[in-house]
Amino acid sequence: MMKQNIQALFNPQSIAIIGASNTPGKIGYFIVKNMLESGFTGRIFPVNPGSDEILGLKVIKKISQLPVKPDLAVICVPRQFVLSVLKELGQIGTRAVIVISAGFKETGKDGFLLEQELADVAREHNIALLGPNCLGLINPHAKVNASFAQGQPRPGNIAFFSQSGALCVAILDWALGGNIGFSKFISLGNKAILDEADMIAYLGKDEKTKVILGYIENVCCGERFIAEALKVTHQKPIIMIKSGTTSAGIKAASSHTGAMAGSDQAYTAAFKKAGIIRVGDVETLFNLARAFSTQPLPQGPNLAILTNSGGPGIMAADVCERSALNMASMSSAIVHKLQKVLPPYASLYNPIDIIGDATAGRYLKSLEIILEDSNVHAILILLTPTSAIAHEIDELSAGIARISKKALLAQKPVFVCYMGKKQVEKGRKVLLDAGIPCYDFPEPAIKSIEAMYLYYQWQKTPEAEPVYSRVDREKAKKVIFRAKKENQNQIVEFQAHEIVRAYNLPVPETRLARSSEEAVFMAMQIGFPVVLKIASPHISHKTDVGGVMTGLKTPEEVKTAFSQITHSAQRLRREAYIAGCLVQKMAPEGCKEVIVGFKRDEQFGPLVMFGLGGIYVEVLKDISFRLAPLTAEDARTMIREIKSYLVLKGFRGEPGVNFAALEKIILAISQLACDFPEIYEAEFNPVLVNHEKALVADVRLSLSY
Amino acid sequence: MMKQNIQALFNPQSIAIIGASNTPGKIGYFIVKNMLESGFTGRIFPVNPGSDEILGLKVIKKISQLPVKPDLAVICVPRQFVLSVLKELGQIGTRAVIVISAGFKETGKDGFLLEQELADVAREHNIALLGPNCLGLINPHAKVNASFAQGQPRPGNIAFFSQSGALCVAILDWALGGNIGFSKFISLGNKAILDEADMIAYLGKDEKTKVILGYIENVCCGERFIAEALKVTHQKPIIMIKSGTTSAGIKAASSHTGAMAGSDQAYTAAFKKAGIIRVGDVETLFNLARAFSTQPLPQGPNLAILTNSGGPGIMAADVCERSALNMASMSSAIVHKLQKVLPPYASLYNPIDIIGDATAGRYLKSLEIILEDSNVHAILILLTPTSAIAHEIDELSAGIARISKKALLAQKPVFVCYMGKKQVEKGRKVLLDAGIPCYDFPEPAIKSIEAMYLYYQWQKTPEAEPVYSRVDREKAKKVIFRAKKENQNQIVEFQAHEIVRAYNLPVPETRLARSSEEAVFMAMQIGFPVVLKIASPHISHKTDVGGVMTGLKTPEEVKTAFSQITHSAQRLRREAYIAGCLVQKMAPEGCKEVIVGFKRDEQFGPLVMFGLGGIYVEVLKDISFRLAPLTAEDARTMIREIKSYLVLKGFRGEPGVNFAALEKIILAISQLACDFPEIYEAEFNPVLVNHEKALVADVRLSLSY
Repeated sequence: MMKQNIQALFNPQSIAIIGASNTPGKIGYFIVKNMLESGFTGRIFPVNPGSDEILGLKVIKKISQLPVKPDLAVICVPRQFVLSVLKELGQIGTRAVIVISAGFKETGKDGFLLEQELADVAREHNIALLGPNCLGLINPHAKVNASFAQGQPRPGNIAFFSQSGALCVAILDWALGGNIGFSKFISLGNKAILDEADMIAYLGKDEKTKVILGYIENVCCGERFIAEALKVTHQKPIIMIKSGTTSAGIKAASSHTGAMAGSDQAYTAAFKKAGIIRVGDVETLFNLARAFSTQPLPQGPNLAILTNSGGPGIMAADVCERSALNMASMSSAIVHKLQKVLPPYASLYNPIDIIGDATAGRYLKSLEIILEDSNVHAILILLTPTSAIAHEIDELSAGIARISKKALLAQKPVFVCYMGKKQVEKGRKVLLDAGIPCYDFPEPAIKSIEAMYLYYQWQKTPEAEPVYSRVDREKAKKVIFRAKKENQNQIVEFQAHEIVRAYNLPVPETRLARSSEEAVFMAMQIGFPVVLKIASPHISHKTDVGGVMTGLKTPEEVKTAFSQITHSAQRLRREAYIAGCLVQKMAPEGCKEVIVGFKRDEQFGPLVMFGLGGIYVEVLKDISFRLAPLTAEDARTMIREIKSYLVLKGFRGEPGVNFAALEKIILAISQLACDFPEIYEAEFNPVLVNHEKALVADVRLSLSY
Repeated sequence: MMKQNIQALFNPQSIAIIGASNTPGKIGYFIVKNMLESGFTGRIFPVNPGSDEILGLKVIKKISQLPVKPDLAVICVPRQFVLSVLKELGQIGTRAVIVISAGFKETGKDGFLLEQELADVAREHNIALLGPNCLGLINPHAKVNASFAQGQPRPGNIAFFSQSGALCVAILDWALGGNIGFSKFISLGNKAILDEADMIAYLGKDEKTKVILGYIENVCCGERFIAEALKVTHQKPIIMIKSGTTSAGIKAASSHTGAMAGSDQAYTAAFKKAGIIRVGDVETLFNLARAFSTQPLPQGPNLAILTNSGGPGIMAADVCERSALNMASMSSAIVHKLQKVLPPYASLYNPIDIIGDATAGRYLKSLEIILEDSNVHAILILLTPTSAIAHEIDELSAGIARISKKALLAQKPVFVCYMGKKQVEKGRKVLLDAGIPCYDFPEPAIKSIEAMYLYYQWQKTPEAEPVYSRVDREKAKKVIFRAKKENQNQIVEFQAHEIVRAYNLPVPETRLARSSEEAVFMAMQIGFPVVLKIASPHISHKTDVGGVMTGLKTPEEVKTAFSQITHSAQRLRREAYIAGCLVQKMAPEGCKEVIVGFKRDEQFGPLVMFGLGGIYVEVLKDISFRLAPLTAEDARTMIREIKSYLVLKGFRGEPGVNFAALEKIILAISQLACDFPEIYEAEFNPVLVNHEKALVADVRLSLSY
């Protein structure tokens, strides 16, 4: 039903513009003008009680006098009239509405409440509502320009939606200057009803759209956003900017549209989970849009660079080496072929340097040969406009365009970088018109190919299921229930151990000693050396109060440690109830400490984290994140993507840790997070791991009610 | 003398072109044509035995028939004639020569030898020789274009030199398209005589040059390069690309001009030492060139952003926050003033968002007010071409140009970012012509301001002297002499300790025990706990052979350890002479391990390194580098710029280490490196440091003869 109404939003047969105006410069004038100039073939009804004619169109005085029910209505009346207009439209049965008018959520509490009323009316009448506080939308293929933006973009295969109207304006102007075409162009505004997830769902099925671009400052519903994106990203790329990543950005974001920016790690994890390509700036957004909308995906990482100049070739090789791509090793048959057509001083290995006196003919011959090499997955052509080639650049460009059609069949993207401006201007246009990305510098070209290769990998990786194991959920439930009953907001030690054991994870043998004598007795039963830890429901950072002593080897040491720990803790935390000390078997030597945990993100739910203990997490912030529920691959890559991974893998002859055991723990905490929404935060810290096994040595769970 | 000859190179009164040609398309034709079209007012002598007239100029048959001694000669004859031509020129007294001809070092051994002969002749006659294998040079202010590049750049204040001729071609074309002017434009070629250091020295004193740009693949002489740059960078900025940084880049570099790329860390350290701004790509090179050549340096880090749109404002704030700049806090008086002229819904705090209906007038009023704020050191104006402003962009641009003159007096750079293309094209040109950098996106604008601010800091920091302390150099000399005499290429343990002590650094109390009984006896003298280490001149990585045991608390433990260590070492290194074990006082608890060392770089001499021991250096590569000799500030920042600095500073209530003691060690190793060139590599590893002191616990010195 709603889906049908979104159809009407983008492909209306008739449009009413409520608040149409006769005064040039007014928004209500612009929209009528844009609709007329777009070449719309359906009916346009300007509505305004005070006018007779606008730009040659007869004006309807009020909504009730409309001759037919319009498929789409655009509202640009002052804010105080918006609600009643929407109600009227709802009553006559219009199911697609764009609210251009501002003065809602972005202005404070009153506006926020008004927007809620607006949304309620829209929901009541099942209206697909875009806005309020937006620029409108453009569908060039249907000749619809229901926006007050300047200029008509040409039809193309790129869709763009944006939470920022200003960015719409900028990008439209940029696209007009660069002759970029769009399939759909949407200003989301305050997202009272329709949001980014709806757009992704619609554009994912839209046949005119090959690449989806988006700019957001927040998402409305994290779960739906990921779910809708996941349905799309295996078919077409979604490339997005999420701004407001740093604290200054967030400050600006909150004062802007009242959007609360979620935590940046959670957004990164969400984009990763959904297969969305996240970029940091508009320039990259456009570079990738051009690349993805015109070229095939490379089927592997190997890049060949064809150049007429050494310096730029070196710089490009530098960039390639720092990327996920490789410099292709040319096969010997191809090198041999190149040798036959190139002068003796050319460099036949990658970068293939055909030297400053290269002509268009030499370029094209080399290009055709390189394309034959099955080791080569993508080609970048670099050119400096030397005197030998300056007058042949148009010819060369036409030749590249011709050969790139063959490359398209072989699924090999061809990118070009003309290093210059004046002499290469015309040739660049020839290439762009033929759908071949042409850049000023090698860097953006290589970055674009890299993004396409990474996306290719995402596309070919089958969607994996989250891992759930058989666990004793009932037992865990009981512990949590008990803690709730006792109004604890933390579960620690014994109780927490019980939950960990219920999820089939090993914990070290641990006993609670209430006196130093008991501690000595228990240590002897467990076997030396042991660890003593303060036992108190009120102390969660034990080391901060001198509450942990390790490597205790004798009864005397245990006895001393007990009184030291309890005294120190009591002195530093006067209010804490101290039950005694936990006596724990000392971890075997050579164990590494890692931390596994999760925190519930407001928008995206449990964000699982992994990192090495101590300095690595706290100082170096060397942490990997994923959103639960996790797949086996998630757990695998979480461990491997931290910078300190080598510490776990072992270096200088040290054996590596038991990765399978670690992965099991990561998957278990993901499952725990999904099973019990009342656990707000969980941390296994430290998890001790060596080449044999992994032990959850300490646990802290925080509850929220 | 040579300096005078370089003058003739750039400002000749007469020019001979040896190998001038009548055939369009030939290099010898291009150079005559370029000289004529540049409007050169001196005399031009084409030299060619086979022609009578070239482009209206009378041709001289041979050098001996030249009517006057030319100030400058350009040689573009085939390689086999170059040497004899140069000799002839030397004999008639020409002291500035450009060798365009290729076929020298870049082609292999024969060419290399020929180039050496060429250089010998040039040296003999004291000729300032540019090239061979270059494009020539251009001095637009003197109307000299002694190159075969296409097009005449206009005069400007930017100098550019490049080791890659291709890059010259590309950059010239780019500049022609963007109407960038140059003071000098130089293709260095193979650098047989004149190199980057000569150019820096010359351009540093050149009054027409405000900004120096360079592209190099290697330097000819590291020491001279740094020394010449240091004389310049406190007056004018040098911005350079050094390519060939990754292994693929280096591969391409060696096959290109036969240049051996030095280690990238050493280059980075050298650029830092010399105050050169290193950039990674041509785009950034140009962005910075435009910024530095037109705007004043910001006198502080605080950036104000003035925008008519929220989204781009947020993105810019994000970028600012990730840079060395701060978002300026507007002073309350200024906020008050802004409030008076801005509509109520504007955001008065930084980013100052004057909202989508802002006109040129509102922009300019706000800009003038913001400029008054003494908290603001630089301003970035963002604009999206909304309908409210689209038709006033020219007016706005002219207004910004006017106000920026005031800003110039106040030393506040003004940068602009017009987000769009079609509607802002004319306005952008107005700004660029007025010397105001105008970008498409916020990112490059902010990065440019950041680079200017960092350079401002460099400029105002007085040049510091390296630190040398009084040391017992004679004692160290003796140890090294003895090792040399015994043909040792490593100095370890006792001998190395002697050197460390001679440099006034503390080493732990250490004795050599030849038997387990001796070890126990010495341990009792030193006091438990102790460390035992294998003592062998042939074993440098002691831990690799199980050669270190720590925390030995009893005579029994020491005894066992002695035999374990010696057996293990003997088994794993059968050929090693084992003198026994070193008995060392155990370091106090809570010590951190750091590594201080140096390695002699081929090009730049001793490269001092600092990092935390173990994983930090080996896995995370968290190391800082500086070139010796070090200043006190070098030692200070080396410690503070590593990522794991917080580990030393102390976190979670831990006390920080004794930084002064660490700095002393770093300075001492720098001094050691300078005092003894025969020490090829040195490593103090570990240096143990706590809040009280730092001890050099182990040392390894490698000698080269």
